[in-house]
Amino acid sequence: MNKYSIILGNLGNTCDRFLSSGYKEQLPKEELIKQAGEIEGVTGVELVGTWDVTIDNAEEVGELLDKNNLECVSIIPDHFSQKRWGRGSLAAKDAAIREQAVDYTFECVEIARKLNCKILNIWPGQDGYDYILQSNLRQERNWLMENIKKVAKQSPDINFALEYKPKEPRNFSFMARASDTLLLAKETGLDNVGVCIDTGHALVAGENIAESIVILQEYGKKLFHMHFNDNYNSWDDDMIVGSVHFSLYVETLFWLHETNYSGWLSMDQYPYREDGQGALRESVRFLQMIENKLNDEVIQEIRELVNTGNAVNSQKWLRETFFK
Amino acid sequence: MNKYSIILGNLGNTCDRFLSSGYKEQLPKEELIKQAGEIEGVTGVELVGTWDVTIDNAEEVGELLDKNNLECVSIIPDHFSQKRWGRGSLAAKDAAIREQAVDYTFECVEIARKLNCKILNIWPGQDGYDYILQSNLRQERNWLMENIKKVAKQSPDINFALEYKPKEPRNFSFMARASDTLLLAKETGLDNVGVCIDTGHALVAGENIAESIVILQEYGKKLFHMHFNDNYNSWDDDMIVGSVHFSLYVETLFWLHETNYSGWLSMDQYPYREDGQGALRESVRFLQMIENKLNDEVIQEIRELVNTGNAVNSQKWLRETFFK
Amino acid sequence: MNKYSIILGNLGNTCDRFLSSGYKEQLPKEELIKQAGEIEGVTGVELVGTWDVTIDNAEEVGELLDKNNLECVSIIPDHFSQKRWGRGSLAAKDAAIREQAVDYTFECVEIARKLNCKILNIWPGQDGYDYILQSNLRQERNWLMENIKKVAKQSPDINFALEYKPKEPRNFSFMARASDTLLLAKETGLDNVGVCIDTGHALVAGENIAESIVILQEYGKKLFHMHFNDNYNSWDDDMIVGSVHFSLYVETLFWLHETNYSGWLSMDQYPYREDGQGALRESVRFLQMIENKLNDEVIQEIRELVNTGNAVNSQKWLRETFFK
Amino acid sequence: MNKYSIILGNLGNTCDRFLSSGYKEQLPKEELIKQAGEIEGVTGVELVGTWDVTIDNAEEVGELLDKNNLECVSIIPDHFSQKRWGRGSLAAKDAAIREQAVDYTFECVEIARKLNCKILNIWPGQDGYDYILQSNLRQERNWLMENIKKVAKQSPDINFALEYKPKEPRNFSFMARASDTLLLAKETGLDNVGVCIDTGHALVAGENIAESIVILQEYGKKLFHMHFNDNYNSWDDDMIVGSVHFSLYVETLFWLHETNYSGWLSMDQYPYREDGQGALRESVRFLQMIENKLNDEVIQEIRELVNTGNAVNSQKWLRETFFK
Repeated sequence: MNKYSIILGNLGNTCDRFLSSGYKEQLPKEELIKQAGEIEGVTGVELVGTWDVTIDNAEEVGELLDKNNLECVSIIPDHFSQKRWGRGSLAAKDAAIREQAVDYTFECVEIARKLNCKILNIWPGQDGYDYILQSNLRQERNWLMENIKKVAKQSPDINFALEYKPKEPRNFSFMARASDTLLLAKETGLDNVGVCIDTGHALVAGENIAESIVILQEYGKKLFHMHFNDNYNSWDDDMIVGSVHFSLYVETLFWLHETNYSGWLSMDQYPYREDGQGALRESVRFLQMIENKLNDEVIQEIRELVNTGNAVNSQKWLRETFFK
Repeated sequence: MNKYSIILGNLGNTCDRFLSSGYKEQLPKEELIKQAGEIEGVTGVELVGTWDVTIDNAEEVGELLDKNNLECVSIIPDHFSQKRWGRGSLAAKDAAIREQAVDYTFECVEIARKLNCKILNIWPGQDGYDYILQSNLRQERNWLMENIKKVAKQSPDINFALEYKPKEPRNFSFMARASDTLLLAKETGLDNVGVCIDTGHALVAGENIAESIVILQEYGKKLFHMHFNDNYNSWDDDMIVGSVHFSLYVETLFWLHETNYSGWLSMDQYPYREDGQGALRESVRFLQMIENKLNDEVIQEIRELVNTGNAVNSQKWLRETFFK
Repeated sequence: MNKYSIILGNLGNTCDRFLSSGYKEQLPKEELIKQAGEIEGVTGVELVGTWDVTIDNAEEVGELLDKNNLECVSIIPDHFSQKRWGRGSLAAKDAAIREQAVDYTFECVEIARKLNCKILNIWPGQDGYDYILQSNLRQERNWLMENIKKVAKQSPDINFALEYKPKEPRNFSFMARASDTLLLAKETGLDNVGVCIDTGHALVAGENIAESIVILQEYGKKLFHMHFNDNYNSWDDDMIVGSVHFSLYVETLFWLHETNYSGWLSMDQYPYREDGQGALRESVRFLQMIENKLNDEVIQEIRELVNTGNAVNSQKWLRETFFK
Repeated sequence: MNKYSIILGNLGNTCDRFLSSGYKEQLPKEELIKQAGEIEGVTGVELVGTWDVTIDNAEEVGELLDKNNLECVSIIPDHFSQKRWGRGSLAAKDAAIREQAVDYTFECVEIARKLNCKILNIWPGQDGYDYILQSNLRQERNWLMENIKKVAKQSPDINFALEYKPKEPRNFSFMARASDTLLLAKETGLDNVGVCIDTGHALVAGENIAESIVILQEYGKKLFHMHFNDNYNSWDDDMIVGSVHFSLYVETLFWLHETNYSGWLSMDQYPYREDGQGALRESVRFLQMIENKLNDEVIQEIRELVNTGNAVNSQKWLRETFFK
């Protein structure tokens, strides 16, 4: 049975470049955590650095989680929402910034330990470039790898899940696709460095999510974490799971099963104008609706479908199995 | 209740630029028409010029249709599969080619009349351009409009459904999007010139199909025909309906209902490696599964959903209404 | 000779959803206007409501413009950066919000008059929807048209340039493409309602900019304004003009010439991490580099290229004419 | 100094799914090879199996190449244009087909040897899938790797350049992106298995070509071959180099230089409606125009640009260096 979690900030306010004050009011942390605990089936949360947790309030946050029977699934270091990271963090051209980014990542390891959390979900969103002839691609990609390696090597009790995304906030991210990021993870030579798939990022990358799962698991059991949302394929719209696509989530859950993924299914959305709790609850229910169907017999049916490869039969099976 | 049809050639062989002989064997026309008639719920077929029907064999084809209780829903003039149209047909730079294209379109009107068919579905796939500075955009777009007008004006008993598509076989088509094509149709000043939405073409254009339906119907009752298929958004993959998306077809059928569309729902696919009849049958069943849900009460529920605009409620409603 | 302008805010701070405080420091208005005046060739600015200008400071802003020899090219009403517009402005479901949006647009007409400005550039970014079954497409599109009509009808001295964009901040905008927006403009029945092409929005819409120019001009002389920037086609990256594409700007300037466009070429960018003045200056220089080549003889050469349509010749000509 | 080559078939007829007879007339092989030899700067050709060369006519083709002073740069085994490969070749579900594909690939090794050719450019276009739940992703990806390994291990005198492409003719290819394919190449454990970048395929994959070059070279010197063309980013339009983009080719040639690429720059296009020789000649000239600028001093200037990362400066430099 899968474990479900959410990213805490999804319950709060969200802004964009046009409405920088955000579409909603910000709720107090106590309320956010309480709301998380109320979503049926959710037993864990992810916390974003700066926004949700710092070294100073970690214990207090931990107590709130305990009180609401929530596990801290991951810490997502804030490598993106501070002005100093505006032109890069772990791969910044400025050596002083890179050093600050490494120090801060070590600090996040400490935060994770305080919260008995086993994953650092690394998303260095500002590490990349916008224009042609703007990046020393070789040097900067290497800085990124070396700095992740530096922290991970000294933190063997923590798993580092590298989250890729093709673009935004940079036009090109250094960790852009599943395989790029796997190569970087393997280059560290460390067992505790792997990859996080965000389903929406994979869609923007043009990936079939199920195939990315297989690639990461087959080339070294490197799928460490999963973020779930949906979108219209061209951009990270961060929508309710199942609101655009349906069948690909069936294939996704099937291959998570087949490759023995034992991590979390974590909801990661930006419900700008929606009720955050409602959006996350509906996402979890959608996935549970699929998961509830995937008993041994159904898994066996899918195995036969993918082995025979008759698309008409697969579509018929999907329709008859899932739709009233 | 909706009327379902198919494009006859979908049951036959299909090729691409790498495998020009096609992925399957070509079946005799008798067999294609017999297969069409066997698909439950299908009562009409569309015929492509050259491939399926010519002025010479029209009567013979008509008899085969009668024998299989099939109506001829539309004639799709072959403005794309002949070498002479390679650089354009109705909008070709070469005046002699344009004249041939007009003549041939008149011939298709005759074919339609012989088959008691009321629609010419015009898809001038070769009319467009590939490169920057290759087209006299003003002149060529105007030729296209004038030539359609010329034929339509003299054929008031036939409806001309202009089918748009952003690209392929040209990198840019002159009839590329719903609204471009509506403008062109309105420019003719003729009541019998309207638009055909191919759901896959609309997806490639980045359109929300339901909104294109509303635009065409609101600005002059101009939705004349509908082609159904599915794809991954970036290209006209011509797949089984519902194989990628689900909920958008619900919204599509809802707005067809609300705008009083009374035309056909026609399956238009390229089942390169699939059993053609199976692919079409499954597509029809998928749409019927949705249509069967859309009784008065459900229609009323959807009206409330779109009026209140709460996305969480809409997603919850979709899940509870359609999924087991 | 073309007239060049910029959007004032491009010189200031810009933020995104991850770094809401922005990548730079905000400069005082005096400094922004001074910098605008320093860019060689720029003689006008566009002002965004709230951000750059309000009814209260309009005269003061006007004096600053005068002092720097700058014309006010357009007012862009702020229909997007206030919490009240979060779920729509001119097409909001909430009648009170729609009324506020109309009132505010009238106020912007007053601002324009105070600044002797002839264009209101309307970009109702929040008017659209994010999810399937979230919008009463027919009703809301109609509210948008009626409300624009209401203001424009009473303001015959002002031209209303409707700026389209396929998505962002909504997943689907009601004014999404050139032709959609032209249809809406025509539906008002008013001569002073037309369209603004933002080159980047057109690219995201999959349009060939030159063809959109031709459509707008041919179907009623409706191209009222031009915003310039560049991007990687999938998203409104708002980059320096010419940084991704080159030849399409040649075709764009050619067709502006051929269709007798006499409006402004206005730079509209988001230089998040760049020097704003430098980004705008470089954009203007890039366009001037092309414009400087387009003398009568060269225009005649292009006419021959587009009439013959030999792509090899066009590419050769571009290379030999523009590259050292 | 770079070495330029072309794919022979680019000079001949090309078809698509709508016009299967092709847009032009097919020329005799003698004429194709003669035309290739006439393009200034071109000293090599690539030959596609079946279409251009078989085991039976290899010697005859070799003599024609000699006569025209052309080297055979690569053999591209025909894993795509035969009906038997319609549902896969090296990764087909059918064991007999996989065996045939391996046998045929061995045969292509023989052809290469007869022509003193050092590269097999492997593009298994039919190996992939179209629908959700159609592929046993783990098993089939593994078959692909094992079969390439089988042939390459026994052919140490030949380099195997694996050419990736996100889609077409399958909706999803197993070798889809630079990094996916590099992982597969590394998994073989063989030095003579590497990757071919087709610039157009990389663009469709959303890659910045320069970064793909760096990834392949940094993670093991695995860039074996380069195909050049241009497109509009969403599809493999196979256009004249430089017809859509300009500056990215500068960055591409710069990073080929920096990573010591010593292979060929090969033109790979589909000039459906263009003069093939003209399209290839213009592509070569465009790249040479850039290459001619890249002397030691200019290379040093670019190094400074990428190290400082000021986008305004990079754009200014590009404009002043390349444009008249």
